[in-house]
Amino acid sequence: MTDFTATKAMFHLPEGMIYLDGNSLGPLPKAAPARMATTLRDEWGEMLITGWNRAGWMEQPSRIGDRIARLIGAGAGHVVMGDTLSIKVYQALASALEMRPDRRVILSDSGNFPTDLYMAEGLIASLGRQHQLKTPAPADVADHINEDVAVLMLTEVDYRTGRKHDMKALTEKAHAAGALVIWDLAHSAGALPVDLMGCNVDFAVGCSYKYLNGGPGAPAFIYVAPRHIDTVRPALSGWLGHAAPFAFDLNYTSGAGIERMRVGTPPVLQFAALEAAMDVWEMADMADVRTKSIALCDRFIAGIETTCPDLKLASPRDGRMRGSQVSFHFEHGYPAMQALIARGVIGDFRSPDIMRFGFTPLYIDEGDVDAAIAIISDVMENNLWDTEDYKQRRRVT
Amino acid sequence: MTDFTATKAMFHLPEGMIYLDGNSLGPLPKAAPARMATTLRDEWGEMLITGWNRAGWMEQPSRIGDRIARLIGAGAGHVVMGDTLSIKVYQALASALEMRPDRRVILSDSGNFPTDLYMAEGLIASLGRQHQLKTPAPADVADHINEDVAVLMLTEVDYRTGRKHDMKALTEKAHAAGALVIWDLAHSAGALPVDLMGCNVDFAVGCSYKYLNGGPGAPAFIYVAPRHIDTVRPALSGWLGHAAPFAFDLNYTSGAGIERMRVGTPPVLQFAALEAAMDVWEMADMADVRTKSIALCDRFIAGIETTCPDLKLASPRDGRMRGSQVSFHFEHGYPAMQALIARGVIGDFRSPDIMRFGFTPLYIDEGDVDAAIAIISDVMENNLWDTEDYKQRRRVT
Repeated sequence: MTDFTATKAMFHLPEGMIYLDGNSLGPLPKAAPARMATTLRDEWGEMLITGWNRAGWMEQPSRIGDRIARLIGAGAGHVVMGDTLSIKVYQALASALEMRPDRRVILSDSGNFPTDLYMAEGLIASLGRQHQLKTPAPADVADHINEDVAVLMLTEVDYRTGRKHDMKALTEKAHAAGALVIWDLAHSAGALPVDLMGCNVDFAVGCSYKYLNGGPGAPAFIYVAPRHIDTVRPALSGWLGHAAPFAFDLNYTSGAGIERMRVGTPPVLQFAALEAAMDVWEMADMADVRTKSIALCDRFIAGIETTCPDLKLASPRDGRMRGSQVSFHFEHGYPAMQALIARGVIGDFRSPDIMRFGFTPLYIDEGDVDAAIAIISDVMENNLWDTEDYKQRRRVT
Repeated sequence: MTDFTATKAMFHLPEGMIYLDGNSLGPLPKAAPARMATTLRDEWGEMLITGWNRAGWMEQPSRIGDRIARLIGAGAGHVVMGDTLSIKVYQALASALEMRPDRRVILSDSGNFPTDLYMAEGLIASLGRQHQLKTPAPADVADHINEDVAVLMLTEVDYRTGRKHDMKALTEKAHAAGALVIWDLAHSAGALPVDLMGCNVDFAVGCSYKYLNGGPGAPAFIYVAPRHIDTVRPALSGWLGHAAPFAFDLNYTSGAGIERMRVGTPPVLQFAALEAAMDVWEMADMADVRTKSIALCDRFIAGIETTCPDLKLASPRDGRMRGSQVSFHFEHGYPAMQALIARGVIGDFRSPDIMRFGFTPLYIDEGDVDAAIAIISDVMENNLWDTEDYKQRRRVT
């Protein structure tokens, strides 16, 4: 059984704040400052260039990749860190499209995080606009899978509503139609159990600053199925993905396995913080995290629906269909969220009317949920969001 | 006049080490650990998600870009930070190729850093292998500029020899032939004065962990000429380059100016260290840095050539034709460099036979050069590199 009291004690949580935005940026692991100080003073400061070997900097992308692999149903050697999620989406998509040269459709959905769509749009333009990006509503995606689809590219958990796709069923349907599949795990990794191997996924990407708590700007990760990794051409073919980076050959030769998906110099300082965050994950079982996440979300929904009739649930009511967040529609969601933040309940607002609250069992418990409900109820019952400033702005527009 | 005693005092330099590898990874600015601790505890720790606004994280890429711009002959608003140098090479090249749709040659040279060539190779493959990457010898590049060339893509200073290209003349010649120009400033930024505006350069990219001392994995930068920036399509079109990232539109619209070259979430923790490094640069005048760099390199060449006849100069003898490093050929360069490192003189080895020494006036002075010469002379005169282990290995191979 995961000891969530112990994991909560491993994070710095500001006094008087109930932090329900770990789905956007996780909090500071208490061990991170000391780990970072060691990396700065003892590694960079004392070892300088020799830190690449002596401090193991060069191996960080795969070493930490292995630690994340455990949380997403992948094996050692299947995941490597680097770049940002946008870049990793591009790399996976460009690489995958080459594996389906006769097909012209990239199928995603209108619930995907915009940067995934933007990167696809940019790639399509570079490739001469021969491909088409389709973005039906999330519920209709399955109906659009057919033999024109080269790649199905989806984010498992909708960043606004928390609605969760059926990874296994959609992957199977795409494979049956001969398409490849890329899953974006931005709101999945560390939020719920993911079974990349069991779902037979081709590519997956994700970030490490949300539920994984790696800190602002922590690097992304990429997974490539073992059946593809020795044949895929990494479209972003950088020197650290080369078979022999320090031979300085003029021509590119892919490295072995997942290492080929590396591109440039890894962000060593970001890794120092991320390593501290991953130590917390060693104490956690994803099944326990999921059970508690659903309980916290259910408790929150029940409390809010009882006390705040103006907030309309935007997330699936069935916990099995949700990620680890709860969202509500409210016309005045923006000022309402401002009012909550001013009172120490940190969630966020997403256009046009979504108030979003993330629940992260590693450091959020039932007491936090109840305290948040009380503050939200107070703000809503007493219209504390309807400030003079907001009234004025509504009059103007 | 730059006070180099003052700048040297701002770096942590390990006891008993003469660090001549700042061209690969600059040393730790003494202010970096405290700056990083503040970013971790007061920003990430206390502000959490609100740090993006309250701590100014979102503006870091352009704020620090402006500080680097000053060192490379660019103006405020012309440079933005992000990603790695490999990614920025790709972004510049993919964007530039679209501006010359009827041309099929990417001209570089065999002295370019391999990752630039690998990224170009990867892009060419993605684009259907309609383009050709030409890599003549550096001295012959000018002769290959003609009206087939879409983009001339060069690194100004050769990573092995320190040989410096004539940026102005090559840019002019390329423009006269109708080509665009991308300069990689990896070994230029902070090493010597660069005049991007004066040379009329189209795109430039570089890294911040070498002469700029931003720390291992510090982010890259990209410059786009003001005459292009409002028309260039950023081939890597991520959400932070969007005109309104937080509108979460489904379609991409480029942001204004250099901001459009941003892609994903910036590496906030790396920026903390880089900001500390940029504070040192506020005290430096690039003309002074250049004068002292040439003097240090000349002094080193004279000392080594007097005492070490087996080392053959691989760098241009004329300081005006060099970057801020000096390289020598030596058949046994690898074990010789190992012997030097063991004795506290840190340079590096580059295949097949290059011993490379970087000179960085911000923290290396004449006393360091003389001390390094004495140790190198001792190692060479007494064949201290020819260890039993190395003798054994030569017998085997």
